[in-house]
Amino acid sequence: MAASPQKVSESTVRRLSLYLRFLEEFEEKGVTTVSSEELAGRGGTTAAQVRKDLSIFGSFGKRGLGYAVPLLGREIRRILGLSRSWRVALVGAGRIGAALFEYPNFRTRGFRIVTVLDHDPKKVGRLWDGTRIRHVDTLEETLRETKVDIAILAVPEEVVQDVVDRVVSVEIKAILNFAPTQLRVPNDVVVNDVNMAMELEALSFALVNRALR
Amino acid sequence: MAASPQKVSESTVRRLSLYLRFLEEFEEKGVTTVSSEELAGRGGTTAAQVRKDLSIFGSFGKRGLGYAVPLLGREIRRILGLSRSWRVALVGAGRIGAALFEYPNFRTRGFRIVTVLDHDPKKVGRLWDGTRIRHVDTLEETLRETKVDIAILAVPEEVVQDVVDRVVSVEIKAILNFAPTQLRVPNDVVVNDVNMAMELEALSFALVNRALR
Repeated sequence: MAASPQKVSESTVRRLSLYLRFLEEFEEKGVTTVSSEELAGRGGTTAAQVRKDLSIFGSFGKRGLGYAVPLLGREIRRILGLSRSWRVALVGAGRIGAALFEYPNFRTRGFRIVTVLDHDPKKVGRLWDGTRIRHVDTLEETLRETKVDIAILAVPEEVVQDVVDRVVSVEIKAILNFAPTQLRVPNDVVVNDVNMAMELEALSFALVNRALR
Repeated sequence: MAASPQKVSESTVRRLSLYLRFLEEFEEKGVTTVSSEELAGRGGTTAAQVRKDLSIFGSFGKRGLGYAVPLLGREIRRILGLSRSWRVALVGAGRIGAALFEYPNFRTRGFRIVTVLDHDPKKVGRLWDGTRIRHVDTLEETLRETKVDIAILAVPEEVVQDVVDRVVSVEIKAILNFAPTQLRVPNDVVVNDVNMAMELEALSFALVNRALR
């Protein structure tokens, strides 16, 4: 690595994820090299931004020749930590949980949901595609036994802080939270929030903003 | 407005959404004034950032007294375009669509799902909480008739570009996309993407990054 990755911004990481998707599309089409312009064009950013993002991690392109598609794909996968697989726990087997469980792109990216937990006695014990739903009361031992790296929390707002405290107590350091609330976690735990209402609020802001021009 | 809102960054808008949530929590507890420190503390940011974010839009606080909770809440709602209600179309009545339809925070924020569309003959005609699912073939007339402002696309990757082209053709300017692909839209259309795999990739990056320290 050319730079300390701690200093990499969240938006750079997101753009890397996007570049990886475009590289995979190029690869499927049999394209072997791409320019920073081509990568930028697909992602709604600039060629300079592409070069800047990639240069944080090393020197991947050749001046005038562009980037080798499969090689750059592999490098970005390595940078993003996708050259290994991750063991994921899904806490909450409601509608959002069910949608996430069936999300096809998790598996292809190396994210394996190895356990599902819920509090509903009607759900506990059921098999979801070979994974038996366990009671959330067993959360700590289940996460330990199944060697979970990442927890996805798809539980109601009212209980999520309690759940996250328990998840954190067994040394899980990465959490994807779907409850519309700000979680309190220790400094060494990373939380990403997916908040559908906030996504719509950003659109609402953009619409109001348009109207004002 | 003190500044042209076009220049407001996406992350500022997201922080405004968060501040609004904290203000509502404070309001529920009967707290009448908060300092920028208190708002920052709840949101994992700094007091200086809170003051900077809010100062873009005007002067809301009083030095030494802090912000009046209900007033600042109203102002942020206005800034975010939440003092009106928005008419939303949900395209795709699969698992993600169903989860979104039941998402309780949409309605409380003024986002009303006024129509649901799907291509599945088994779903078309069904009533979801009083809203009849229409066939996606009728998309253009349905969006026009129901006066939709915002479209949520919860359809498979393979068809989403076709769907978005049709949505854009009836002058919808704001789209929330759940398909894991980059949509091509005219410049005056705002798209927000929710990509679950990319959220996990950001966590994966953070975990690898930790391990390197």
